[in-house]
Amino acid sequence: MTARHPQPLVLTPLLGIPLVERGDDLAALILGAAERSGVLWRDGDVVVVAQKIVSRAEGRMVDLNAVSPSPKARELAALTQKDPRLVELILRESAEVLRAVPGVLIVEHKRGFVCANAGIDHSNACGSEDCVLLLPENPDESAARLRSRLEAATGRRLGVIINDSHGRAWRLGTMGVAIGVSGVPALVDLRGRYDLLGRELRITQIGAADELAAAASLVMGQADEAIPAVHVRGFPYPLRESSFRELIRPREKDLFR
Amino acid sequence: MTARHPQPLVLTPLLGIPLVERGDDLAALILGAAERSGVLWRDGDVVVVAQKIVSRAEGRMVDLNAVSPSPKARELAALTQKDPRLVELILRESAEVLRAVPGVLIVEHKRGFVCANAGIDHSNACGSEDCVLLLPENPDESAARLRSRLEAATGRRLGVIINDSHGRAWRLGTMGVAIGVSGVPALVDLRGRYDLLGRELRITQIGAADELAAAASLVMGQADEAIPAVHVRGFPYPLRESSFRELIRPREKDLFR
Repeated sequence: MTARHPQPLVLTPLLGIPLVERGDDLAALILGAAERSGVLWRDGDVVVVAQKIVSRAEGRMVDLNAVSPSPKARELAALTQKDPRLVELILRESAEVLRAVPGVLIVEHKRGFVCANAGIDHSNACGSEDCVLLLPENPDESAARLRSRLEAATGRRLGVIINDSHGRAWRLGTMGVAIGVSGVPALVDLRGRYDLLGRELRITQIGAADELAAAASLVMGQADEAIPAVHVRGFPYPLRESSFRELIRPREKDLFR
Repeated sequence: MTARHPQPLVLTPLLGIPLVERGDDLAALILGAAERSGVLWRDGDVVVVAQKIVSRAEGRMVDLNAVSPSPKARELAALTQKDPRLVELILRESAEVLRAVPGVLIVEHKRGFVCANAGIDHSNACGSEDCVLLLPENPDESAARLRSRLEAATGRRLGVIINDSHGRAWRLGTMGVAIGVSGVPALVDLRGRYDLLGRELRITQIGAADELAAAASLVMGQADEAIPAVHVRGFPYPLRESSFRELIRPREKDLFR
């Protein structure tokens, strides 16, 4: 079902979430921030959470000083001018290397999405200068756990998206995308729907969770004032069970790999 | 300047815009719809307008019955299983063909962006079954003209984005992107900015206009209830003069063409 009702889409930054540490209770932090930000929860609300705080809470930090690069990692590191220990982690997190040139390493992450450096970012979370943060082990499950806690606390039917910023083919600038989804349609399928004129629609699949992830990314920002979670009201499609995997273009249908 | 202030991002559908015809006054239609939708204009507001109504107002419809396909168009049409007259128009609108397989024709539009079918869509605008709609001739100029009219009528400093829905490498589902921009930063450049921890940011260029175009696309929808214009309050970056061309990855820096 894809019935829509025109309504405003409102994205509210959830303020005052502290630096998240391993084991922190994200649901409690988000509920507290929502209360401080004046959010009154309703059925159909969605929370978009930055990958970084999910990974930190799950302890996905790695001290590069504990990583021994393989010969293959050393070779790729030389080619891409990256830290061989980082490249070793990227390879462990990846299913395939798509492009490797100086400064750039684009891979298919083992979860299926194509991105730079397997989504691994520098972090201060280990208390070491050489600390990096991996993506959550299973972002859909992370989203589902968080949603379950938020729904229990609020008594509302909610959705959760975990977003990250990815670069793109053809266009400059990163864009927020959904890397984990629970209770929100990742893809909205309009096949068989018609336009005002009775013509079958040209566009048949909308990356709805990605569009919302991008909107939230705009509110989150990237710099020192970054906001790691955003409350959304007015997501225009009916909520349903879903997975970020709906958004992964099957390898054999991808003309640009 | 990239200073941000956390604030809600509110996207309001502009209701009651009728089917747009060649020569219609888009600014007047948008101002009327905004008034009906309860919008009180403020400095910094942005309007996102669907490409389709800009093209219709500019008379960019073509009756395929008036198009003679070249031999090259016939050849590509056979390969892609598309109408040779449509392929002829796609070629005229394009700088380069990137991929052509059955059902799919991906090109670099002469304005620089990579998309399917040069952004040409079927339309009823000619009163013929064989009518298609081309993109605006110069989307930045279209955005600038509209902005100028809206600013004059409201007395406010505004931004305008013309959006369209593009498919993507690697991921399924279309996403709204900016194909014309006026008064809004297309790209936000964070090079030299630091995170909470004093580390230089990994992400240095944000596709801000694309993120907003995606958010608006969610509000617009694609099907019979589509909304062709959205009012935005709370765009988090300072407005400035810009162009969609900032978002085009230079050919020589694109590893996926």
